[in-house]
Amino acid sequence: MNQEYSQKEENGKERKYQQLQLWLERAMALQTANILFEWDNETLAPKQAGACTAKVQGALALAYQELMTGEEIGKYLELCEQETELSEAEVAILREAKEERKELACIPPKEYRDYQELISESARIWAQARENQDFEAFAPTLEKIIQYQKKFSGYQAKKGQRLYDVMLDHYEKGFSIKKLDEFFQLLKKELVPFLHQIMESKVEILDDFLEGDYPQQEQKKLAEFIAEYVGFDFEKGVLAESAHPFTTNLHNRDVRMTTHYKKRMDSSLFSVIHETGHAIYELGVADELTQTLVGQGASMGMHESQSRFFENIIGRNEAFWEPIYPKLQEMFPKMLGNVSREEFVKAINKVQPGLIRTESDELTYSLHVLVRYELEKQLIEENLDVKELPELWADKYEEYLGVRPKNPAEGVLQDIHWAQGSFGYFPSYALGSAFAAQMAAYMKKNIDFEALLREGELGVIREVLRRHIHQFGKMRDSRRLLRDMTGEDFNPQYYVAYLKEKYGKLYQIEGRS
Amino acid sequence: MNQEYSQKEENGKERKYQQLQLWLERAMALQTANILFEWDNETLAPKQAGACTAKVQGALALAYQELMTGEEIGKYLELCEQETELSEAEVAILREAKEERKELACIPPKEYRDYQELISESARIWAQARENQDFEAFAPTLEKIIQYQKKFSGYQAKKGQRLYDVMLDHYEKGFSIKKLDEFFQLLKKELVPFLHQIMESKVEILDDFLEGDYPQQEQKKLAEFIAEYVGFDFEKGVLAESAHPFTTNLHNRDVRMTTHYKKRMDSSLFSVIHETGHAIYELGVADELTQTLVGQGASMGMHESQSRFFENIIGRNEAFWEPIYPKLQEMFPKMLGNVSREEFVKAINKVQPGLIRTESDELTYSLHVLVRYELEKQLIEENLDVKELPELWADKYEEYLGVRPKNPAEGVLQDIHWAQGSFGYFPSYALGSAFAAQMAAYMKKNIDFEALLREGELGVIREVLRRHIHQFGKMRDSRRLLRDMTGEDFNPQYYVAYLKEKYGKLYQIEGRS
Repeated sequence: MNQEYSQKEENGKERKYQQLQLWLERAMALQTANILFEWDNETLAPKQAGACTAKVQGALALAYQELMTGEEIGKYLELCEQETELSEAEVAILREAKEERKELACIPPKEYRDYQELISESARIWAQARENQDFEAFAPTLEKIIQYQKKFSGYQAKKGQRLYDVMLDHYEKGFSIKKLDEFFQLLKKELVPFLHQIMESKVEILDDFLEGDYPQQEQKKLAEFIAEYVGFDFEKGVLAESAHPFTTNLHNRDVRMTTHYKKRMDSSLFSVIHETGHAIYELGVADELTQTLVGQGASMGMHESQSRFFENIIGRNEAFWEPIYPKLQEMFPKMLGNVSREEFVKAINKVQPGLIRTESDELTYSLHVLVRYELEKQLIEENLDVKELPELWADKYEEYLGVRPKNPAEGVLQDIHWAQGSFGYFPSYALGSAFAAQMAAYMKKNIDFEALLREGELGVIREVLRRHIHQFGKMRDSRRLLRDMTGEDFNPQYYVAYLKEKYGKLYQIEGRS
Repeated sequence: MNQEYSQKEENGKERKYQQLQLWLERAMALQTANILFEWDNETLAPKQAGACTAKVQGALALAYQELMTGEEIGKYLELCEQETELSEAEVAILREAKEERKELACIPPKEYRDYQELISESARIWAQARENQDFEAFAPTLEKIIQYQKKFSGYQAKKGQRLYDVMLDHYEKGFSIKKLDEFFQLLKKELVPFLHQIMESKVEILDDFLEGDYPQQEQKKLAEFIAEYVGFDFEKGVLAESAHPFTTNLHNRDVRMTTHYKKRMDSSLFSVIHETGHAIYELGVADELTQTLVGQGASMGMHESQSRFFENIIGRNEAFWEPIYPKLQEMFPKMLGNVSREEFVKAINKVQPGLIRTESDELTYSLHVLVRYELEKQLIEENLDVKELPELWADKYEEYLGVRPKNPAEGVLQDIHWAQGSFGYFPSYALGSAFAAQMAAYMKKNIDFEALLREGELGVIREVLRRHIHQFGKMRDSRRLLRDMTGEDFNPQYYVAYLKEKYGKLYQIEGRS
C-alpha cells in the first residue's frame, strides 16, 4: 500500500513502535501546520485571507482526525501492546494516542461536523452580542453548545462518571468536581473575607504613574529586554504583537509569544513576563519528547502555573526589580525618574477588585475563576437555564468581589471560552496559581530564592523548574509532577498562605499568620 | 473506509468530480501548509528552528506525494474520464492532476528520497563553496545532482524526447531546445553587438545619487507606497523582509512578498515593483481557480513576464515617474532634491555590464541568462564535464558581456538554482522579458500606454493583463495566453526591438531602427 512506510516493516518486532512513530509524526506535522496557521492568522495574515485559509485549516484538521482514528495507527497501536521494552516516553505516547483516538472516534462524524460549524459561527455571534451588550442574542447559541458538550461528554464518560468530570478531565487530569469543590471552597472561605479586610485597610497605594508617557517603541524595547532577562531565548523563539497576548509553539526550538502595547505600561510588561513563563516551559521540554504527542506542557493548569510563577511570584517580587529597576527608570525617565523602587513594586501589586478577569490583580484573580467554576458546574450538572446566567453572574461578583457589572459585556459575555465550547477550562487558571505557590514554597526551602532574584540569577530558578517539571512535557500528569517535585500531593494551603502573607504585609492587615 | 468522504458518493455520476475535488483540496491544503512554512522560514522563524521544522515539512511533503499518487485520487481520476460535462477549469485540473501523478509516480521512492537528501545537503555545500570561492568543493555534488536529474528525466521522457527538453517542460511548456536555440541565437546576434555600441557611446549617465542617505525607515515607507501605487492590495497581502526578495501566495486573498533594504535605494525600489508584478498576477487569478491545481500563474516565464513588465516596462519608464517623482524628492530631499526627473530616470536605466545576474540592468539581463542556457544544455545534452564549468563560464561572460569573473563566487557559483536541481529554469527568466515586450507592443496599439502612466492610471493596464492573463491561472499555457492576447505566437523580435529602441535613444546610437 504505502511504499514509503511499509518497507521498514520487515525488520520485525522491535520495529513496530518505529512504524507507529512514522504515522504519529505525520499526525503531529498536520497539527503543527495548523498551529502555524493559527499563529499567522493572529499576527500577520491579511484581512481578507480568512475564508480561504479556513478551508485549508479545515482540510488539515480533517486529515489529522482521519489519520489518528484510521486503520494504520489502530493496527500499530495494537501491535505495540505486545512490546515489552518500551521507554517511559513511549508508553506515554501510546497512552496519549489511544486516548486521542478514543475521543475522536466516539463522536459520530456528522455530529462532530455540525458542532464544528456551530463553533466556528459562535465566536462571531458572541463577539457581536458582546459588542451590543446583548446576552439574549448569544443565549440560544450557548444553549446549543452546552447540549453538544453534554452529549459528547456522555459518549466519552466512563460508567457512572459525571459529565462535568469528563470535561474537567480534558484540561486537568486528577482534578474532579470533588477535588475542585474543596479547592474553591477553601478560596472562598479564606480570600473573600481577606479581600474585605484589604478594602477596609487604610493603606493607600498610588499607581497613576503606570499610565502616561510610555511610547510604544520604548515599551517594545522593554518587552524584549524583560523577556530575555526572564529567560526567553530569541534564537529559539519569536515575540510579536496580537490583539490578545498568547504563546504557542511548533516544537522546543520554535516557541512564539505575543504581547499588546497599551497606555498602562504594566499591561504589556506583565503580559510578556507571563507569556515568557509559558514559553520557558515549552523551551524546556526534552528533545526526545518534542514533536510527539507528549511534547507539550502537562496540562492547562501546569502551564498556567509556570506563567503565573514568572508573572507573579517572580515578576511582582521586589527582589526581582532590585537589579533592573534602574534600567526601567532609564528607559522612562519622565514617568519613573522620581518613583522609587518601593513605590513601583507597591503599584504593580495594588489590589483593585474589578469586573474583568484578564485585568485583575494577583489576589482577586482566583475569585473571578470561582464565579465561572460555580456557574459552569451548574450549567452542566444542574441544568441551570442559560437565561439566568447574567443575574447569577452579577450576584456572585457582588458577593465575592464587591462589584456588580452594569451590562453583560463586562459580565458573563467577557470571556470567549464558553463560545468555543471550552467547559472545564476555567478551573485550571486558578489551579495554576495554586500549583505555582506550592512550588515556590518548596523552592524557598531549598534555595535562597530572594537572593537569587536580587542577584539576577534567574537561571538557577529556571533550572529547578526545568528539572522537575518542564523536561517531562506531558509524559507525567500535573499531580504526579507536583508530588515528585514538592514531596507532597496538591495542597492549596500554600496558595492561601502565600497570598495572605504577601498582601497582609502590603496592606498591614492585623493578625496575619 | 472514510466516513467523511465516502458518504457523499451515493449521489451518483455527477458527484464524481466533486469527490475528486475533496481529495485534491486536501492535497492543496498540504501544499499550502508547506508554502506557509517556507514563507515563515525566510521571514520570521527563529535561528535554531531549522532541523525540527524541516521534519514537519518533510512529513507534509510525503503526505502530499502519497495522496497525489494514491488509490483514491487514482480511482476518481479514472471515473472522471467518463464525465462529459466538465468545465474548462475542471478539464485543466484533471490534466494537472494526471501530470503531477505521473511525475511523482515514475521515480522510485528510494531514489527520490536519496535525491531529496542530496538536495537538502547541497544548498549548504554550495553556500560554503561560494563563501570559500572554491568550485572544487561543490563539483562532486553538482555532478551527482546532474546524474539524478538526467535519470529522473529519463523516467519521464516520452519516446525519443531529449532529456533537457523534459527539464524545460517543467518550467515552460511549448518551449523546446529548438525554440530556445532560435530565441537565444537572436538575442546573441542582436544584443551582443548592440551592447558594444553602447559601451562605446559617449553618453555619460550619472547614478551616484542613488546611493547615500536613504534611511531604512524611509525606504520602507517608499516600498509600501510604491507597492500600493503599482497595485498591491494590502488587504490581501503582506510585505515583509528577507535576505532575497521573493513572492509567494497561499491563495488569491493572501499573496505575500518580501524585499531587502540596501544602501542603493533602487535595489529595494525595483525589487518591490518586480515582486508586486508577481503579486498582481496571483491576486488576479479567478476565484474559481484559486486553491486548485491550476490556481497559480501559468508558468515560470509567464510569471516573470508580469514582474518584468511592472519592473521595467512600467517602472523604468519616464512617464511612470511623472506623477510620483515629486513624492520621491519629498521623501529624500537631501539625495534627490536637486536631481531632475530626467536625470533620475536615466540613472535607473544606466547600462552597466557586470558579473552578477541579479544586479544586472534591463539590457544585459538576458545575456546573463544566455550564458546559463548554453552551459546547462551542454551539461545535460553533451555531457560537459562539470570541472570545465568555471573556465567556460568566464569565457562566455567575457565574450558576451565584456567582463570576466576573478573567482567562481562571482562566476559559476553565484546562483543557487543548480544546487537545487533546477535545470531548465533559467531560460524562463529571459522568456519572461520577451513575453512582456510582446504584451507591451500589443497594448501600445490599443491603449495610450504612456498617457495612462503619466496620469497614474495603472488600473487600466492591470485590468488588461488580468483579463488576458491573470484570471486564467494555470488553466492555459503561456503560448496560448500570449497568442490569445496579442493575436500572434511568441515573437522575440518585439523584445529586441523594444530594447534597441529604448537604449538606442538613451545612448544616442546611430542607425537604430
